[in-house]
Amino acid sequence: MHRASLILSFAAGVLCAAALADSLTCASPDGKNTLAFTLGENGEPVYSFVYRGKTVVEPSTLGFDVKVLAKDAFDGRRPASLRDGFAIAGVERASADETWRPVWGEESEIRDRHEEMLVKLVQRGTGWRMDLRFRVFDDGAGFRYEFPKTDSKDVARLVPGENIVQDDAPPLAHFTIVEERTRFNLPCDAMAWWIPADYETQEYRYTNSRTSEIAKLFRGAPDANLSSQLTDVPAVQTALMLKYDNGLLVNIHEAACVDYATMHLKVDGMAFESLLTPDASGAKGWMHTPCRSPWRTLIAGEKGADILASRITLNLNEPCAIEDTSWIHPVKYIGVWWTMITGAKNWAYMPDPSMHAANTTNVVRHIDFAAEHGFDEVLVEGWDTGFEDWFGKEKDAVFDFVTPYPDFDLEGLNKYAHEKGVKLMMYHETSASTRNYERHLDEAYALMNRLGYDTVKAGYVGNMLPHGDHHYSQWSNNHYLYCVKEAAKRKIMVNQHEAVRPTGLCRTWPNLIGNEAARGTEYESFGGNNADHTTILPFTRLVGGPMDYTPGIFETDLSKVCAWKKQRTSTTLAGQLALYVTMYSPLQMAADLPENYEKRLDAFEFIKDVPCDWEESRYLVAEIGDALAVARKAKGRDEWYLGFKTDENARDAAIPLGFLAPGRSYEAKIYADAPDAAYRTETADRYVIERRIVTAGDILKLHAAPGGGVACSFKPD
Amino acid sequence: MHRASLILSFAAGVLCAAALADSLTCASPDGKNTLAFTLGENGEPVYSFVYRGKTVVEPSTLGFDVKVLAKDAFDGRRPASLRDGFAIAGVERASADETWRPVWGEESEIRDRHEEMLVKLVQRGTGWRMDLRFRVFDDGAGFRYEFPKTDSKDVARLVPGENIVQDDAPPLAHFTIVEERTRFNLPCDAMAWWIPADYETQEYRYTNSRTSEIAKLFRGAPDANLSSQLTDVPAVQTALMLKYDNGLLVNIHEAACVDYATMHLKVDGMAFESLLTPDASGAKGWMHTPCRSPWRTLIAGEKGADILASRITLNLNEPCAIEDTSWIHPVKYIGVWWTMITGAKNWAYMPDPSMHAANTTNVVRHIDFAAEHGFDEVLVEGWDTGFEDWFGKEKDAVFDFVTPYPDFDLEGLNKYAHEKGVKLMMYHETSASTRNYERHLDEAYALMNRLGYDTVKAGYVGNMLPHGDHHYSQWSNNHYLYCVKEAAKRKIMVNQHEAVRPTGLCRTWPNLIGNEAARGTEYESFGGNNADHTTILPFTRLVGGPMDYTPGIFETDLSKVCAWKKQRTSTTLAGQLALYVTMYSPLQMAADLPENYEKRLDAFEFIKDVPCDWEESRYLVAEIGDALAVARKAKGRDEWYLGFKTDENARDAAIPLGFLAPGRSYEAKIYADAPDAAYRTETADRYVIERRIVTAGDILKLHAAPGGGVACSFKPD
Repeated sequence: MHRASLILSFAAGVLCAAALADSLTCASPDGKNTLAFTLGENGEPVYSFVYRGKTVVEPSTLGFDVKVLAKDAFDGRRPASLRDGFAIAGVERASADETWRPVWGEESEIRDRHEEMLVKLVQRGTGWRMDLRFRVFDDGAGFRYEFPKTDSKDVARLVPGENIVQDDAPPLAHFTIVEERTRFNLPCDAMAWWIPADYETQEYRYTNSRTSEIAKLFRGAPDANLSSQLTDVPAVQTALMLKYDNGLLVNIHEAACVDYATMHLKVDGMAFESLLTPDASGAKGWMHTPCRSPWRTLIAGEKGADILASRITLNLNEPCAIEDTSWIHPVKYIGVWWTMITGAKNWAYMPDPSMHAANTTNVVRHIDFAAEHGFDEVLVEGWDTGFEDWFGKEKDAVFDFVTPYPDFDLEGLNKYAHEKGVKLMMYHETSASTRNYERHLDEAYALMNRLGYDTVKAGYVGNMLPHGDHHYSQWSNNHYLYCVKEAAKRKIMVNQHEAVRPTGLCRTWPNLIGNEAARGTEYESFGGNNADHTTILPFTRLVGGPMDYTPGIFETDLSKVCAWKKQRTSTTLAGQLALYVTMYSPLQMAADLPENYEKRLDAFEFIKDVPCDWEESRYLVAEIGDALAVARKAKGRDEWYLGFKTDENARDAAIPLGFLAPGRSYEAKIYADAPDAAYRTETADRYVIERRIVTAGDILKLHAAPGGGVACSFKPD
Repeated sequence: MHRASLILSFAAGVLCAAALADSLTCASPDGKNTLAFTLGENGEPVYSFVYRGKTVVEPSTLGFDVKVLAKDAFDGRRPASLRDGFAIAGVERASADETWRPVWGEESEIRDRHEEMLVKLVQRGTGWRMDLRFRVFDDGAGFRYEFPKTDSKDVARLVPGENIVQDDAPPLAHFTIVEERTRFNLPCDAMAWWIPADYETQEYRYTNSRTSEIAKLFRGAPDANLSSQLTDVPAVQTALMLKYDNGLLVNIHEAACVDYATMHLKVDGMAFESLLTPDASGAKGWMHTPCRSPWRTLIAGEKGADILASRITLNLNEPCAIEDTSWIHPVKYIGVWWTMITGAKNWAYMPDPSMHAANTTNVVRHIDFAAEHGFDEVLVEGWDTGFEDWFGKEKDAVFDFVTPYPDFDLEGLNKYAHEKGVKLMMYHETSASTRNYERHLDEAYALMNRLGYDTVKAGYVGNMLPHGDHHYSQWSNNHYLYCVKEAAKRKIMVNQHEAVRPTGLCRTWPNLIGNEAARGTEYESFGGNNADHTTILPFTRLVGGPMDYTPGIFETDLSKVCAWKKQRTSTTLAGQLALYVTMYSPLQMAADLPENYEKRLDAFEFIKDVPCDWEESRYLVAEIGDALAVARKAKGRDEWYLGFKTDENARDAAIPLGFLAPGRSYEAKIYADAPDAAYRTETADRYVIERRIVTAGDILKLHAAPGGGVACSFKPD
């Protein structure tokens, strides 16, 4: 351990200038990164982080504004600060280096190597304990607040020789969070890839701007969404991707958000500060010691691949809590879905049954198609009663999750599917009424068990119920995890849409195989995505966990699916194929209609072929907002897959195939944009397929059209 | 039917002066009461009610302020008025005269005889339907709002020859209630027995004042309570008891409050107006047509007995929804309860196990006592983990309702009790976290089924969770009824404390055998009740349904139970006995400690003797705030019981025994205050017991001490 000398700048919300020679520091295992902690002049907790000589976060204050329950409950809660007046009561250090095997993932083994420093703090006067646990990795750092359960005698012992506890202070046992005040003082006016902070939706297009410009761009950024509530002050969502003027890449997010509100980042000049999601009462957290915050993560890298390769989010989550994980598996699926998303058919049986997509005949056709092409499951949305009157209505008790529409043969279709070796995937539209869903959860899951469904897609469309609550509050976050835990008891895998953005909880609960929590493929129909959208998501949304992005749109002219939908996709067909590799998920949909695949079975071959669980992943091109190339090795066999995706610009890439096993030749099958292909044009669906024998020594030259991409498979020759 | 001529006064909130010659009227079956309805000059719905020539309610407006969901959900909700602009689109009339048998009650048969008038209203311009259904009884009236599901074509047909629907109005399909605007314009400045309107508690002492004085007394009225939120404006709770200058008695309450917020009454001079309980979002109701309000009830009478004898609240509820009610039965019980209420022992096992009341030894003693004296059940509070850290803390997940403290032998005690012919009564302290309770409900009820508990007392102490919600909101009210319905599925009877005040739902769900919902006997320890409290409750709180008042305190000096509790009860011992008759409940507790009964087994005999289910009830003295005498015939046998209860004043009564079967002699056993007895003194527990042979022709002279009473049993000689 060594001590760092830090320079503090004087500004609003920033510490007074002083060389904090007495900082506590914690270096990364490789010794190249340093987290420093100190107390300011007024006892403010301050941290800073330096990555390989480059400042990630300048000295920044930590703490909370809270309301603490008085000793006598009849006296209510008193506003208090957990921002200053602290003394250091002890420091504990630990090292870890262990390798664990995820149930599914981008690789089969993950190494968790870090140094830890726990700084025990006691506030003078109140005697309140607030500890800070830091973990420093070779690729970043994480820290969280911990509030141990203590009594005043324990605390007095921690700081001997000082009367640290005043008699009239209640213990810090039960408190509400008015606001978390975690600062991220950046060393420059960083470029940011951001979406606006919103308590109800994450389905935004990204803006790329200087941090200092966010405030003025904030209100102009929103996309139309039924359920949207921008924060009062300019702020952004995490995971936030930043690029500093010196080229350093930094990602700010959180890990293991459990029983806590989701964090947004308030913009303050070129700094950020935590902004938690309130519940209906306006409180941002109800805390009862012992308790702790999620980890606040700082992933840093010299190049984009460093960010994508980081496993800090997963490593800061608890190990798997499910003993027998044998029933958890990757899922490739098709669905009765795109036909409604495009507007061609309806979710509801009423008023026009002929427009109802989830009818037995149509589902049989999907089952047949899935069976023929080797898909695991068929998602069927709109199968149960309730869709006829719920969207945007904020109704409490819409769905019972067990009653099918009259044209959906629930029992027969499951039987038929299983006979064909396919499962149906359950769909639960909760109508965002968490209470109604929880009331029916046991019966709904029991039905799934009885009929042999093993995966549920659960939606949270619309404003949350209880009314006044928000999608990412402590209350709501508790609900999402409750459903995942209850599902685990019944060996059910969960894919949550419109729920909170993930924070790596899939390590602990690997039955959480999917989350939406960002603007997905559905927006190709709902107003469009930006062409660079999928070159940004892996650096932002996917830092928390996989996304059920639902790629695979082959009919790039949506008017051919729904006549009045005059819209074209923001990618080419080959670009869609590339997403199966670049957008990692153990759950992958082929989102288009069977007939659109049947017209292009040669290209469809890639979707059938590509695995969704991996032994190893290589990030070959990783330019946020521009281009991505990722190569991955199939779990348990010597096959590699490559995805190359570009933004709105055509792009060439020369990919060295060094990842292939040396001395072995592979057949590369290359699915590329046709020379004249371009997104949002009538050429978007043009592609060429080429086979070639390659070896590890080769360099593969690829060309992606505007909005396009390339997908390749490599199999031993 | 006849038409009434009404005089309207001109004042704020009151209609302009006009003789509304074209009123629609509905007379009671006996022709003596008249409900009139008309539309004001601006199409305002107006009703009035006259009882036997005396005005109960002067012409008063009806309606709502609402926000209506626009046609396109993205356009949000628009503020709108359902208060004027209406046209009458039709009137439907019906008569009813039927007698039904309650599962339990103050009598074995209840007659529901009324005339009904349904006035169909359409609002000009919007085409919105709001119907008013009136029912007129010989002892009062009720009305409710109904919002049928309609489309614009249906509506247009209702008012032919007029273009009543404008194209741009959304349908009245989904709306929130900003406020219900039901007026009760009284004809005079009535005397009122009231408690202040509060969104969290009903546990107040009553104030008796002129209506016009409520506003200035409102803020001074509250009693200390952990969870209390007075309404912003002066208002009172229902059931509200009023006495007009002409002697008319009027009770305003509601019946069948289902999926709707509880109504308070805002004071406006000498008038009242509905004030609903908001949810955490501030909304007072989330409505989806077809839907309706609870009934607003007006019970009227020339004398107090008319109010007590009215069954309007029950009659306006739906018939029993439980097919097999054989498992529902009255329950007389003792409990491990008073020892904690007085402060002598604790609910929690920690920190001092020797102070934990619900220990196996103590419960065995209670079981033995219950078995010896013929009680059905033994309530045990504080048996499960969680009590050690919850009170006033607003914690979300405190109790699991299945894990006993280490000194409570859950299985063994149930086995022991059943062997002795006694059941344990379950206690679920929900900690007011409705979500946590619902999550555990199935498991908690299953445990009860497995071990043979058939009754649960469920408590809702503290501020409601979800945070920001209120005890009497639509959201909370939905929860209470949900628990009752789920319990019915498992043949479990429910007794809810700190839950919403009842509105006769026990007719539909007779497994709801108890509610607290007012200041009960526990306040004899928590700061005292007024001596007249139980002479008021039957006219107010009990109009909605029975109360688990938990009488039976024999040791009137609480310092003998808990040394530091220097408090005496507000009744004498004999007064406590009288409550078993005057305070009707199918669930009756003997609330004191076994040892306090063992010292006075002769007086205890009455508690053992008195039934809690009745064939017939007679209200012999019914002076609100002064005195009550009630005689009741045991169900299925020729035994009568009499309770006479006075306020702070000593009082004599001469009770004609004409209720006894003629020509038969009975042994009357009279439990009376000793001559020197008086409440809140050391003589409060002095009583005399006398046996006498009586017949129907006798007049029984009774004397009650200050705060005292008399209890009698009459059995065939």
